[in-house]
Amino acid sequence: MAGPCAIESAGQIQRAAEVVKAAGANMLRGGAFKPRTSPYSFQGMEHDGLLLLEQAGRDVGLPVVTEVMDPHDIERIAEHADMLQVGARNAQNFSLLRRLGKVNKPILLKRGMSTKLDEFLMAAEYILSGGNTKVVLCERGIRTFETATRNTLDLNAIPLLKDWTHLPIIVDPSHGTGTESLVIPMALAAIAAGADGVMIEVHPEPEKALSDGPQQLRPARFAELMRALRRVAQAVDRTV
Amino acid sequence: MAGPCAIESAGQIQRAAEVVKAAGANMLRGGAFKPRTSPYSFQGMEHDGLLLLEQAGRDVGLPVVTEVMDPHDIERIAEHADMLQVGARNAQNFSLLRRLGKVNKPILLKRGMSTKLDEFLMAAEYILSGGNTKVVLCERGIRTFETATRNTLDLNAIPLLKDWTHLPIIVDPSHGTGTESLVIPMALAAIAAGADGVMIEVHPEPEKALSDGPQQLRPARFAELMRALRRVAQAVDRTV
Amino acid sequence: MAGPCAIESAGQIQRAAEVVKAAGANMLRGGAFKPRTSPYSFQGMEHDGLLLLEQAGRDVGLPVVTEVMDPHDIERIAEHADMLQVGARNAQNFSLLRRLGKVNKPILLKRGMSTKLDEFLMAAEYILSGGNTKVVLCERGIRTFETATRNTLDLNAIPLLKDWTHLPIIVDPSHGTGTESLVIPMALAAIAAGADGVMIEVHPEPEKALSDGPQQLRPARFAELMRALRRVAQAVDRTV
Amino acid sequence: MAGPCAIESAGQIQRAAEVVKAAGANMLRGGAFKPRTSPYSFQGMEHDGLLLLEQAGRDVGLPVVTEVMDPHDIERIAEHADMLQVGARNAQNFSLLRRLGKVNKPILLKRGMSTKLDEFLMAAEYILSGGNTKVVLCERGIRTFETATRNTLDLNAIPLLKDWTHLPIIVDPSHGTGTESLVIPMALAAIAAGADGVMIEVHPEPEKALSDGPQQLRPARFAELMRALRRVAQAVDRTV
Repeated sequence: MAGPCAIESAGQIQRAAEVVKAAGANMLRGGAFKPRTSPYSFQGMEHDGLLLLEQAGRDVGLPVVTEVMDPHDIERIAEHADMLQVGARNAQNFSLLRRLGKVNKPILLKRGMSTKLDEFLMAAEYILSGGNTKVVLCERGIRTFETATRNTLDLNAIPLLKDWTHLPIIVDPSHGTGTESLVIPMALAAIAAGADGVMIEVHPEPEKALSDGPQQLRPARFAELMRALRRVAQAVDRTV
Repeated sequence: MAGPCAIESAGQIQRAAEVVKAAGANMLRGGAFKPRTSPYSFQGMEHDGLLLLEQAGRDVGLPVVTEVMDPHDIERIAEHADMLQVGARNAQNFSLLRRLGKVNKPILLKRGMSTKLDEFLMAAEYILSGGNTKVVLCERGIRTFETATRNTLDLNAIPLLKDWTHLPIIVDPSHGTGTESLVIPMALAAIAAGADGVMIEVHPEPEKALSDGPQQLRPARFAELMRALRRVAQAVDRTV
Repeated sequence: MAGPCAIESAGQIQRAAEVVKAAGANMLRGGAFKPRTSPYSFQGMEHDGLLLLEQAGRDVGLPVVTEVMDPHDIERIAEHADMLQVGARNAQNFSLLRRLGKVNKPILLKRGMSTKLDEFLMAAEYILSGGNTKVVLCERGIRTFETATRNTLDLNAIPLLKDWTHLPIIVDPSHGTGTESLVIPMALAAIAAGADGVMIEVHPEPEKALSDGPQQLRPARFAELMRALRRVAQAVDRTV
Repeated sequence: MAGPCAIESAGQIQRAAEVVKAAGANMLRGGAFKPRTSPYSFQGMEHDGLLLLEQAGRDVGLPVVTEVMDPHDIERIAEHADMLQVGARNAQNFSLLRRLGKVNKPILLKRGMSTKLDEFLMAAEYILSGGNTKVVLCERGIRTFETATRNTLDLNAIPLLKDWTHLPIIVDPSHGTGTESLVIPMALAAIAAGADGVMIEVHPEPEKALSDGPQQLRPARFAELMRALRRVAQAVDRTV
């Protein structure tokens, strides 16, 4: 899965879609409703962004995933997206999780910044117990004392969750590290540790991004990552 | 502010209301909609609990505060409660916060388990920037490596927030420590550090509580706390 | 206990000694051997500093406490100091602790930045089991994700340790918060929570300090703290 | 590098040495002086263990590495070991580090449980600035709120340290995770992320180990790991 942090314009998301398709990714991501720490930061293009994402995905033939923040937006977003994402700040928003249990779309559930692994599975259980069994877990970094990285991407979660659950587990090294130069090594490490996939932020021009520029890969680096991922996957007897 | 973790029956909340009123508290708390880690744990009495809380508050002459989890429950809950609480797990649920900015009721905003203090103020800003200026901040413990306490109640937040904002700051030592024997010393410490109030879980019979029994004070201990609080408050030239 | 972070000159430690004595403290602290993160920072006046501390203490009639870092310096330092301090970075330096078990001087054992409370008691046990029963525990802040304070002073440790051990417990709000404006409120909170004492960094001219200037109180503020401490201590039926 | 947590007998260390040599490791590890949380736990075979380690290494033709805890043991240990290890609890024991700067042996410096990466490099600088330039850094897990693993092995440290320093970086997934089933996936991830090597605890019979049994690999699993490591290393254009 790959794509920009936020959908910013028709041109930006279309260009990103072409890049991620060409490099061999199998899902397009893009944020329309953005949870931002400050109410004065760019909050996403909202419904307009969603339509742009849907169109970009169709144009290149990739399913799309985007974040849902409000329980009452679920239906509207589900009409346009193939997969719904729950962000780290809503990892224990039980009203939202409960309603996602009634949706007929796969859910990408991100681990919260201070969610223990047993609590993470319990959050998934809010969705599963509602009848929606298509849940994909996503490790995206936890809060620790270390400030050299934005978060501490916790790859230990992969083999542990593999022992504890049958749910697929992917890793988001872009948010997990917050630093572009760490994205490739940590994505490779995630696959070596047994992850079922990675979610990568790719932006045609990261230096112009409206959010999280420093962690987004430019297109050439993303293509390089995809080639390296295939080699590591093969070394651990898997395919990407 | 004081009262049981969860409203469990008419008798329980009425008895609790009498106890907290008699000891001199000025607000009654009680959970009707309970965010629980597991979907299989007791989730609160929901709307029925809310009505019981309202009645118990009226009977003893205390305003009531209760938690709201879903943006679309706000209006309904606001009809029956005098103050709306945002729980730690929803500390960065921006859909919820944004709608609370449009409500004409004071909001009790709890710090998230991994919310930095600058992010805490930004979360408050989501409410304030919507036009609702009646926000009370509540420190309730953060996630650290220490497992001897349920959370690490971070009293450093009090003087720091006092430097940074004019918003009132209260402390919840019940959730913050998770241990009944720590509630009284940490409540006294909170007042000594400059907190504007404390929120205490009191239950007529903690050993029969449906949630968080080990951290709820029994009535006699609560009365003892109130007496001790008045003395410490006086020593720092404040009143309770 | 009070005094400067590091001994810097005869004049500085003498002036500090007079200030802390006048305000009513009962022990003088001062670092001669300083553990600094960088090998290029000021490392303390070492043996010369120790002699200045001893003299300053004698002049005002206060016992002195200073840090020991190397097991083989213990004897030499014990000849000139009344109490030996183990710093946070050496909280689990078992070679050092074991040798301190054979010394006939009280030991001030600081909690490490990531030491759990049960491990803290086990560290004390290294000294106690050697035959030296005069150990004083010191909470001085732990490492957490919060960066608004230098460390997170964990006052929860006080009532918990009071439940678990008969050893005296003091609190160091200067290192624990790293911020001068937090020292007074957190010192008061420590006493309200049941601490047996506080250790405060006082410097005649903090803006000229060679280490940790921003957290050291100037003399007038220290005197103000001592007066406030007496009032809070009285409110919880103790004396300072 | 591989070998048992602690040297327990001549037979145990010899058998371990044969196993690690046969599987292709290039250094033998074994603890003679063991830093244990409790003074009542097994503290290692000390000098006798050191001689057994030296002999086992010679017999199979592998250099040996062992921990030094006390500055005054350095010379004695350096006579028998090819590399000296500084454990996590002594990561900021500056007396020890300073003296290791004067030794003509390579040093394996473990990151402390709460050491930030910039502090880790400053700790190395204590050795380097003394004139000993042969320092190898070792990531071995940090303290976080997550309790499902003994520590949180922080692989993000690898690419970051690679950006910041020319010093070699290895990873210890045995202590870093504390769980045997996580050792292989995390060792593979470490190599994929760019680590220069791994340090693995191997014990002929982990269930009989005197310390850290649950995290030590048995011989057949270690051989399996070595084969998998070679494949992943090749996929990232390196050799083991």
